[in-house]
Amino acid sequence: MLFGAAYYPEYEPYDRLEADIALMRQASMNLVRLGESAWASWEPDDGRFELERMQRVLDQVHAAGIRAVLGTPTYAIPPWLARKYPEIMAHRADGTIIPYGGRQNVDFTHPAYRYHAARVIRAIVGRFAEHPAVIGYQVDNETGIELLHNDGVFAAFVDYLRGRYGDVEELNNVWGLTYWSQRLSRWADLWRPGGNTCPGYDLDWRRFQASLTTEFLGWQAAIVREYARPGQFVTHCLVGGHGRPAADRYAIAQLLDLPAENIYVAAQDGLSLPEPDNAARYAPSWCEAGGVRRLSLMADMGRSGNQRGFLVTETNAQAIGLSHENFPAYDGQWRLMVYALLARGAEGVSYWHWHTCHQGNEQYWAGVLGHDLEPGRAYQELARTGRELSEHASALDGLRPDADVALLYSQDSKYALSFQPPLADAQTGAPDRRSYEQIFDAFYGAFFDTGAQLAILHPDQAWDAYPVLVAPALYIADEALCERLARYARDGGHLVLSFRSGPGRARNRLGGRAASRRGQRPGRL
Amino acid sequence: MLFGAAYYPEYEPYDRLEADIALMRQASMNLVRLGESAWASWEPDDGRFELERMQRVLDQVHAAGIRAVLGTPTYAIPPWLARKYPEIMAHRADGTIIPYGGRQNVDFTHPAYRYHAARVIRAIVGRFAEHPAVIGYQVDNETGIELLHNDGVFAAFVDYLRGRYGDVEELNNVWGLTYWSQRLSRWADLWRPGGNTCPGYDLDWRRFQASLTTEFLGWQAAIVREYARPGQFVTHCLVGGHGRPAADRYAIAQLLDLPAENIYVAAQDGLSLPEPDNAARYAPSWCEAGGVRRLSLMADMGRSGNQRGFLVTETNAQAIGLSHENFPAYDGQWRLMVYALLARGAEGVSYWHWHTCHQGNEQYWAGVLGHDLEPGRAYQELARTGRELSEHASALDGLRPDADVALLYSQDSKYALSFQPPLADAQTGAPDRRSYEQIFDAFYGAFFDTGAQLAILHPDQAWDAYPVLVAPALYIADEALCERLARYARDGGHLVLSFRSGPGRARNRLGGRAASRRGQRPGRL
Amino acid sequence: MLFGAAYYPEYEPYDRLEADIALMRQASMNLVRLGESAWASWEPDDGRFELERMQRVLDQVHAAGIRAVLGTPTYAIPPWLARKYPEIMAHRADGTIIPYGGRQNVDFTHPAYRYHAARVIRAIVGRFAEHPAVIGYQVDNETGIELLHNDGVFAAFVDYLRGRYGDVEELNNVWGLTYWSQRLSRWADLWRPGGNTCPGYDLDWRRFQASLTTEFLGWQAAIVREYARPGQFVTHCLVGGHGRPAADRYAIAQLLDLPAENIYVAAQDGLSLPEPDNAARYAPSWCEAGGVRRLSLMADMGRSGNQRGFLVTETNAQAIGLSHENFPAYDGQWRLMVYALLARGAEGVSYWHWHTCHQGNEQYWAGVLGHDLEPGRAYQELARTGRELSEHASALDGLRPDADVALLYSQDSKYALSFQPPLADAQTGAPDRRSYEQIFDAFYGAFFDTGAQLAILHPDQAWDAYPVLVAPALYIADEALCERLARYARDGGHLVLSFRSGPGRARNRLGGRAASRRGQRPGRL
Repeated sequence: MLFGAAYYPEYEPYDRLEADIALMRQASMNLVRLGESAWASWEPDDGRFELERMQRVLDQVHAAGIRAVLGTPTYAIPPWLARKYPEIMAHRADGTIIPYGGRQNVDFTHPAYRYHAARVIRAIVGRFAEHPAVIGYQVDNETGIELLHNDGVFAAFVDYLRGRYGDVEELNNVWGLTYWSQRLSRWADLWRPGGNTCPGYDLDWRRFQASLTTEFLGWQAAIVREYARPGQFVTHCLVGGHGRPAADRYAIAQLLDLPAENIYVAAQDGLSLPEPDNAARYAPSWCEAGGVRRLSLMADMGRSGNQRGFLVTETNAQAIGLSHENFPAYDGQWRLMVYALLARGAEGVSYWHWHTCHQGNEQYWAGVLGHDLEPGRAYQELARTGRELSEHASALDGLRPDADVALLYSQDSKYALSFQPPLADAQTGAPDRRSYEQIFDAFYGAFFDTGAQLAILHPDQAWDAYPVLVAPALYIADEALCERLARYARDGGHLVLSFRSGPGRARNRLGGRAASRRGQRPGRL
Repeated sequence: MLFGAAYYPEYEPYDRLEADIALMRQASMNLVRLGESAWASWEPDDGRFELERMQRVLDQVHAAGIRAVLGTPTYAIPPWLARKYPEIMAHRADGTIIPYGGRQNVDFTHPAYRYHAARVIRAIVGRFAEHPAVIGYQVDNETGIELLHNDGVFAAFVDYLRGRYGDVEELNNVWGLTYWSQRLSRWADLWRPGGNTCPGYDLDWRRFQASLTTEFLGWQAAIVREYARPGQFVTHCLVGGHGRPAADRYAIAQLLDLPAENIYVAAQDGLSLPEPDNAARYAPSWCEAGGVRRLSLMADMGRSGNQRGFLVTETNAQAIGLSHENFPAYDGQWRLMVYALLARGAEGVSYWHWHTCHQGNEQYWAGVLGHDLEPGRAYQELARTGRELSEHASALDGLRPDADVALLYSQDSKYALSFQPPLADAQTGAPDRRSYEQIFDAFYGAFFDTGAQLAILHPDQAWDAYPVLVAPALYIADEALCERLARYARDGGHLVLSFRSGPGRARNRLGGRAASRRGQRPGRL
Repeated sequence: MLFGAAYYPEYEPYDRLEADIALMRQASMNLVRLGESAWASWEPDDGRFELERMQRVLDQVHAAGIRAVLGTPTYAIPPWLARKYPEIMAHRADGTIIPYGGRQNVDFTHPAYRYHAARVIRAIVGRFAEHPAVIGYQVDNETGIELLHNDGVFAAFVDYLRGRYGDVEELNNVWGLTYWSQRLSRWADLWRPGGNTCPGYDLDWRRFQASLTTEFLGWQAAIVREYARPGQFVTHCLVGGHGRPAADRYAIAQLLDLPAENIYVAAQDGLSLPEPDNAARYAPSWCEAGGVRRLSLMADMGRSGNQRGFLVTETNAQAIGLSHENFPAYDGQWRLMVYALLARGAEGVSYWHWHTCHQGNEQYWAGVLGHDLEPGRAYQELARTGRELSEHASALDGLRPDADVALLYSQDSKYALSFQPPLADAQTGAPDRRSYEQIFDAFYGAFFDTGAQLAILHPDQAWDAYPVLVAPALYIADEALCERLARYARDGGHLVLSFRSGPGRARNRLGGRAASRRGQRPGRL
């Protein structure tokens, strides 16, 4: 049973390593996440590494019986790297460039980035892989927030299409490019996605973008594994729930020894059940209401990648969010969250983060310790919970939830319905780009409210063992999937479908029965 | 009595020409619109034409007694053209470029575009002008959606101003450029419209943009007429109602043998009279509520260009709009719309479009046939209506509505009041850029609700025969127009004016009586 | 007692100088502001000056006993200057360039701008300084609306930081750049502000931007003073209330002989006390409701720069705002505003502007005379008020309000809380970037509602004489300020603090007691 926090001693206003470790031990913590976010501290200038600071941290946590997950620092690049290779900054759909100043802002496919990322990863992991405190590695962090539109990425997209479709005539037919005069005469004709209006194009573009994230994390994992000792795991922390726009949780889970989730939820009255009418009042702007259901859904998502256990790498310490929205948990809610997560299959819980930052963008995303760096209300409850976990570890380890109902999660359908949403925003009437998420959550919530336990499945996984299978808004489904679903129903399974199921078929080109039953290949007249 | 649909066999998932024509005939359809939108099918690569597919279509529709309107395919360019001449993509006010991927996205004044447009028009019309099925031509489609800001366009604007004003001192005076230090020292000083704050500048810019659309359509019409047989007409389908931002319906009508309108309205409860309180609920986001009044207004607009008949080139087949807003008509409403349009002077009704697309951006803008390509509810009602039209053609042909009241429509005032609106958005308090439209529609609606029949007039047209003339928000009016209005009232006409009438005079430079009565030319002190 | 209006004879549609002056005299006006906004009239082409028109204006106003404040015309550049040096147009945070066409749109630090600005200022002031009508000069107008992001400005920012912090290690520590891997290896690493997420960076950037405005106005004042006669004053008109984003009212006041304010408020029911529930209905979109309180606050702000008198350079003549929002005062409200301003320390009131423009962007921001240029309702009330002022000048001159309560105004805190606001927008939940203003105004309003008189103080000013000192949201406060406040309270003063007081300390790096009490310098582990 892992229990701990992300620990950034390099952010602290003075050296308090011993005091921190003592407080962690008093809270029965046995885990720290270290080293991510700190590339500029690992490598303050191009090729000049300063690795020693971590030796002392690892030595002392090890001495205290605390285990460490070492993060690669690649999601936030140092200023010197952006200065030397401005071309690695990520380009947006409209051609503008994400400026330096935040994180997750680079074209991680760019060779200049890869060269430096590999070098710093090798330096760090090569230096500390043998340290006995290190039990695993986290590669990057919450990858996939931006769709990348850099030239090299677009060139790779054309190659991706050539690989899938062979020639432009096939692509013309599959995407239906006769419409609005978009037929390609050669590959060089393919237009940039920023102006695209073709649903088939967009679906492939989204699949391609997700594949970039998967490939990047796999590339990092392979480097790390060159150095890792047997028994050390590789993980990556996904944004919980429906995740990043360019992250395919199922594909990523296949790369990892232990998937991990960052699970944040609304607290205070937002974490009541039944939900009060004003639950949304307690959710930060970036976060949905419905805290308990959302907590459960996110944990079930965490389990879905490989249908085994997962680690919670981040969750509410105190207030989560920005300076204008501060809703730290009520007494008892931290403990409630921990047990709820364990009950849904978490193999450990780690907070983000140990101490509240005095600097930088997230000064109001509070840690276990507040700005005064003294134990407070959150710490006390966590310490109590940590003691319980420690005392009852044998009973709590390796819990696997049952499931009464399985829900099929279709990444392709999510993509397609963000391009052509079936739902409108209730306030504005604008298309609701999160339609798939809304529909999926509504089905999840309906079963949740009955007390059912749910499992979330990827189309590649097996559902024969579940008595009920729900496939909300399965807009994109290839012939094989349709056939598997039909067989499940024929064999006695209870299959629940919704509106907008199946019309987009595999390539997001609509086709009713009459349109497809002729067995003719779509073509020119 | 023309009755039919836009027909895109090239979009269909398989060849079903015979089946389609049979269904059209069963629905008493006698018209198809063909060939627009398909440049990349007509000319799949630069200079390589594939015209033969249309021969078979024309032969078969002709054999079935169906007449064809052949469209020039110029509003959606093929990818190879955008690749070879990226400079032809339209530039926006802020200097950004409309990316390839949609339609109506080019600088149609650009010589590279004109060269290729002329070539493909000549190829198509030259090839099929003699075909007996062809009764007319549609040049381009709903032109004028974007104001063009390309370098060549701006250079032409300077020339346009030189032609109108002669020298910069005159322009300094007419636009009032002393204000905020904007006096020009020479023509090269003229700034781009993207930053402009001067009302006089904006009015001329808008007039100039409209003149580009008129010139472009006239240029196409002239090319087509080089090939057209006697009796074949030239048309262009205008967006119904207040139209595109850069389209002057009166000027365009003068170029055409038969003006045409695309008339879409809210259906279901949005097409009830009296309107229910929740009528807006049934209007797609891009469409105003008030279906019946709007249908009437749009038809009256269609008639206004030349005060004769017009063709309805597009109207609701089934759902109109995007994936999140689907309101196909109730039973009986299709028939209602047809007769309402005929009663307001339409010489025929053609649907957009025959079949619902399985591909491309408008998969949810449904056609007469749905995605299953089988006759359904809409088809059945259209077929019944088509039979009636066919049976009663002699009674229905050439209907010309009376008019109790004439409304003066001022394109100039619409432009000026979009720059300096008198109305605020009720929700946000922001200036309502559609103030002219709101005021005009309110006057139209008030008379409509009394059961009056209306005629909409351009200031160049005659109103002496009408007992009542309403000029809503006539913000821009030159001396001659003011004098004609005064004479009408003096001669016993009932002239209704509103607030904000006349202050902008001809050049959108305000002037009360005292400011103008001195007879002095505005000048520097 | 100064009473008058901004007078732009160059904007008028015909020469009516004599008639205007006669009307001014009938209204007991004794002041005109002249010459600003008219660079293109002063210098119609590069190096060609036309100064003579002003000779006649000054001669005639002098003959009528009216005094003149001569404005430098630098806030609106002529088109030829933008054409010759496009690089002087101001750049925005996102890298786009503010296009020519408005005003306050240049990088006023650019040497090409400075060269031409100095030349035109010297030409005008050199020509008219000796004119007996001229009592003072206004340098520029409402400067500081845009943060400038031009290359030269950014280079100056780096130098500014080098001057303050010496080396990058110090900056790394002060700003806390370890966070998200932002440590600089050298000055060249500093990223542009457009992408910045670091609070410490933003605070220094805002201070730097304000310093640019101060330096620019000081530079203009120095040029003007080379020519000014003894007794002529230098002023600058600040936007009333919380002012422009890049204007530090305290620093600017130190440059001026007589500070000035442009004070516009909602009129009609928006100027009632107590405020009706629908007061906001009468405020133009750019203007807050709460007219009476706002008028008082703005006057107290005007006094705050040097705790002496100030001039009202602009205030409501008739409607203020855009074409869609016109709320001219009710009868009696103009007079009420004048006396309210005098009671709060104004040394004179000047309207913007004499006549309503027939041209240009502000046709609906009405003057003392309307578009008909005839005396109307506003003129009549102003004339009556002017007579009273003239008759009772000796009693009204030099009034200095008492103050029961002092409020501390922290420019630094305003900057910091716009980057990390404590308040959310009530409608949208988005961060309210005007949080400091809201909190400050709430405290001001609470005291105002009790009938208390208030003084607004800059932290550099003395508050010992006030029994109550309120420091709302004093987020940024250095050690010396904290010590002064503590001493004030220890010595018996009533010090009122609010939430979010002090955490950002001097450098916008949060630190609780524990974090700072160790006396250790923030540093790397």
